[in-house]
Amino acid sequence: MDVFEAIRTRLTVREFLPDAVPDEVLDRIVEAARLAPSSRNLQPWHFVVVTDSATLSQIGAIASSGRFVGNAPAAVAVAMDGADRPDLDAGRAIQQMELMAWSEGLGTCFVGLRDETQNAEIKALLGIPAEFQLITVLPFGYRQRVTVGAKGRKNRKPLSEVAHRERFGEPYA
Amino acid sequence: MDVFEAIRTRLTVREFLPDAVPDEVLDRIVEAARLAPSSRNLQPWHFVVVTDSATLSQIGAIASSGRFVGNAPAAVAVAMDGADRPDLDAGRAIQQMELMAWSEGLGTCFVGLRDETQNAEIKALLGIPAEFQLITVLPFGYRQRVTVGAKGRKNRKPLSEVAHRERFGEPYA
Repeated sequence: MDVFEAIRTRLTVREFLPDAVPDEVLDRIVEAARLAPSSRNLQPWHFVVVTDSATLSQIGAIASSGRFVGNAPAAVAVAMDGADRPDLDAGRAIQQMELMAWSEGLGTCFVGLRDETQNAEIKALLGIPAEFQLITVLPFGYRQRVTVGAKGRKNRKPLSEVAHRERFGEPYA
Repeated sequence: MDVFEAIRTRLTVREFLPDAVPDEVLDRIVEAARLAPSSRNLQPWHFVVVTDSATLSQIGAIASSGRFVGNAPAAVAVAMDGADRPDLDAGRAIQQMELMAWSEGLGTCFVGLRDETQNAEIKALLGIPAEFQLITVLPFGYRQRVTVGAKGRKNRKPLSEVAHRERFGEPYA
């Protein structure tokens, strides 16, 4: 899928078809994360790819904001090890995975894991060192056929509220 | 350009051809930012698009880590207004812009602006409210023809260092 088409049509997906995600598709999602840019190219990240249904169910049971992980055929945990700007680097890798997955017919939904107890429990479950910062567990699965403009749509602020020309406050469009 | 191709070939670019960036290309870059996902869909961002060469030169003169902004035909400043997780949201919008730009034949390089004085000066220059968090000014311009595997290459950790299967420490590949 073309980059702009992926950006334009991508939606958050919390319901997945039961089909397994083929290894070569998971490989491309992980590769999209690995190849992301990061601050000073430190690549301070680890990606734990989970396809075991018992583990996925446990993650869904722990994560109060991510119950749907339990119904996904795969997930990728993103953990940062001593990054300067962990959220910024993670955000760039996450977005590359989101677009890669979307272009393959899959979907995902960011799960924040901001509850400290839940976050620690998932780290323990996945064997991630306690001192790492677990940013999210992104579920991945094939999506129902939903397109922007039909049932699915993006709810975004208009350009006039977020874009400016030359100086803040000067309308872009 | 196909999503995986953009992810696979994208490189950081600090030298730009002098050609102006057409409005419709800038529009797609800004749209890629506007359409990015964010925590609780708060979209807590502002994008200031700069094409005025005097302003670009001033930014390059202020930003000690981003002198090359002065030689770019365009730039987008990313400022966050009261975000829960400004770096995470910004990272996702930034990465959509990077991939969009790359797919159009352009390049960019993240400029950190972590020096508080420089950061404040650029906010003042662009009229961005002082209480906003200025994350970066991304320069954009057409790139020289450099491809991964030729002169250009990505310097990334091998998959074995960053990817794990089912549990941290279990090799992915």
